[in-house]
Amino acid sequence: MKFSKLFIKTKKDYPKDEVAVSSQLLIRAGYIDKVAAGVYTLLPFGLKVVSKIITQIRSEMDAADAQEIYMPGLVPKANWETTDRWKTFDALYKLKGADEREFALGATHEEIVVPLAREFVESYKDLPLALYQIQNKFRNEIRAKSGVLRTREFLMKDLYSFHKNEEDLNQYYDKMIQSYWNIFDKCGIKEKTYLTFASGGTFCKYSHEFQTETEAGEDEIYVCAECKTGLNSDILADQENGKFKCPDCANTEYEIKKAVEVGNIFKLGTKYSKPFDLNFVDEKGKKNLVIMGCYGIGIQRLMGTIVEINHDEKGIIWPKAVAPYDVHLISLEGSEKRGEEVYQALFKAGISVLYDDRDISAGEKFADCDLIGIPYRLVVSQRTQDKIEVKKRDEDETKQLSEEELLKILG
Amino acid sequence: MKFSKLFIKTKKDYPKDEVAVSSQLLIRAGYIDKVAAGVYTLLPFGLKVVSKIITQIRSEMDAADAQEIYMPGLVPKANWETTDRWKTFDALYKLKGADEREFALGATHEEIVVPLAREFVESYKDLPLALYQIQNKFRNEIRAKSGVLRTREFLMKDLYSFHKNEEDLNQYYDKMIQSYWNIFDKCGIKEKTYLTFASGGTFCKYSHEFQTETEAGEDEIYVCAECKTGLNSDILADQENGKFKCPDCANTEYEIKKAVEVGNIFKLGTKYSKPFDLNFVDEKGKKNLVIMGCYGIGIQRLMGTIVEINHDEKGIIWPKAVAPYDVHLISLEGSEKRGEEVYQALFKAGISVLYDDRDISAGEKFADCDLIGIPYRLVVSQRTQDKIEVKKRDEDETKQLSEEELLKILG
Repeated sequence: MKFSKLFIKTKKDYPKDEVAVSSQLLIRAGYIDKVAAGVYTLLPFGLKVVSKIITQIRSEMDAADAQEIYMPGLVPKANWETTDRWKTFDALYKLKGADEREFALGATHEEIVVPLAREFVESYKDLPLALYQIQNKFRNEIRAKSGVLRTREFLMKDLYSFHKNEEDLNQYYDKMIQSYWNIFDKCGIKEKTYLTFASGGTFCKYSHEFQTETEAGEDEIYVCAECKTGLNSDILADQENGKFKCPDCANTEYEIKKAVEVGNIFKLGTKYSKPFDLNFVDEKGKKNLVIMGCYGIGIQRLMGTIVEINHDEKGIIWPKAVAPYDVHLISLEGSEKRGEEVYQALFKAGISVLYDDRDISAGEKFADCDLIGIPYRLVVSQRTQDKIEVKKRDEDETKQLSEEELLKILG
Repeated sequence: MKFSKLFIKTKKDYPKDEVAVSSQLLIRAGYIDKVAAGVYTLLPFGLKVVSKIITQIRSEMDAADAQEIYMPGLVPKANWETTDRWKTFDALYKLKGADEREFALGATHEEIVVPLAREFVESYKDLPLALYQIQNKFRNEIRAKSGVLRTREFLMKDLYSFHKNEEDLNQYYDKMIQSYWNIFDKCGIKEKTYLTFASGGTFCKYSHEFQTETEAGEDEIYVCAECKTGLNSDILADQENGKFKCPDCANTEYEIKKAVEVGNIFKLGTKYSKPFDLNFVDEKGKKNLVIMGCYGIGIQRLMGTIVEINHDEKGIIWPKAVAPYDVHLISLEGSEKRGEEVYQALFKAGISVLYDDRDISAGEKFADCDLIGIPYRLVVSQRTQDKIEVKKRDEDETKQLSEEELLKILG
């Protein structure tokens, strides 16, 4: 893509109420546009990053034998009443149609996926089953002050698993923990992320959150100094005398960290299968309630967290797997023809390129390049002649490479 | 994909209130699930068809130099008040947040895209500009009785174009008409679709609808017997004495057809740039309002229309470009090993296969195959030996082909 053809421009400023560094950088670099508190438009760069994140997530979900569907945002009142959440779930946006039908916007989708599963699950042979979607969630947040880290509307990957017994759920749950680690690894936040015990609800003592350490986080977690297992504050309060004891290794030393929840997973048990009477006939011909798990990742929050963890004073530093482009090519004055040649050569080699062909100063081009944060900066100028100057976003060293050498590195 | 691994099953029945054949077939064949009147879940087959349709649309929009973005569903009340649509637009679902902020769900997105364009458009050099998205729309429909042909929530491709003058808008508008014809051609509905004059709103006498002839349609159009140009009923009423006169060829003979609107395009002029003060500085340094066009396609409605036009008494007949899979492979009893071999060979050749490996009767497999409507049916049985029986969904003739011959046809 040629920068001169893009409608976005980088900005020096950001809205005053934008306190999180991630949202400040994403706005300045032209990834997102703020519509209202907690409501954003994804601009072309932002949509590309989100698509790359989705590709990583989808690949892990497919590998876990999950089937992708797409549920509606309009969830009928009757469904929420069946689970008693119409009155108890604060985050619902409720609305009434012209025909007086009432809906709440999907803040989560147990109320749709469980009746759907009931239509198709009859016997133990239909289990296990895992259904997921990548779909827009709406949450009626009282405060939305952390930029894309807490929004009123966001794309979410939510997966729901259905099992014939607890053992099967436990196996799938452990598999999903590994899938999540793979995703966070690709997203460049694994090293700063802690698997954290959280309150579990009805079925089992604990649920788990994946909490990423960052000053921008709204949560506080207690991390075992020995094995890095985390507890969230609810769990700590539940422990004997409110004293820390690691549930994994029983160690009592810990560190307190500010963190943002990038994923959470629950063993739901029969919490939702019971009100919707989702049951199956087992090997002995007996009816049983289906045992469920659920597993969520908020995509925009994940994008924001990646930026919180991967930036410096000049701008964003995208991990390769989720960068909007592979390389950022800059041609300096007098080297426009050479720039076009290199752009075409990279394009033919299947490398995705942001080519800054704009008629602006070298300084502006370099500053925008650092702000936007694509993994490789390539420069062609009269000085580089038939070579290309290559610099990684997170390194200072530059190299002069031939096209062939460059393609070898990028391949 | 192996059918035995899919959670969906085909059905004999459909909800009683489902009157459109398209929705009856899509429900019976396992493409969609009805949640409420006008509200559906896309099941794996349905999501695949929608993704294929989106691929076709995206390819045409990219070819028309449009840039993809993703706008929010939550559109602030203030934005709707700026254009005076908070009170006048009946189809809005309105809601109030915990902090008393009011939103209406995006039924269309001029109220977001115009302020966005204002942030980036300054001079004539920034024009023309075309922005589009593929995003969920919400419409507060009083009646939603035509299945997926009229829903309360649906994915829409909406494109907004921005121009420095009317001539530039007209050029882009004509280009978009051609893009739409290309899309409807790939979707197998071009032959039955009429470019129809409709009321134009504020700027220009006419807008255009793409209307596809079907008994399931809620509209009535008047089609010139000579040149096939259509008029919708609003326009006919506007004409002198309500008598038909073709705006293209002045012919007065016509046919009345029932039809469904699969696309509509508007020359908006300054209708929305004016209230948001979206202007640009022209070549002479003078400020002018930007001239706009908008162009929409509802994706689920398009899917439904494809089915209305492409089905027989046995089921759906997908056009190749939007079929959920390339081929539907059936192995009959005793040929499971051969089925697996052919499945693997096709997979390796990059052909997408639905492989019916279920332990059910041949009759059920053939019936499901016709219902689901994938372009090619492949059968391996003890009778076919090392050949494969090939039949097109819309033909009766079967052929016995070797793997090599089959791949030649499918490539």
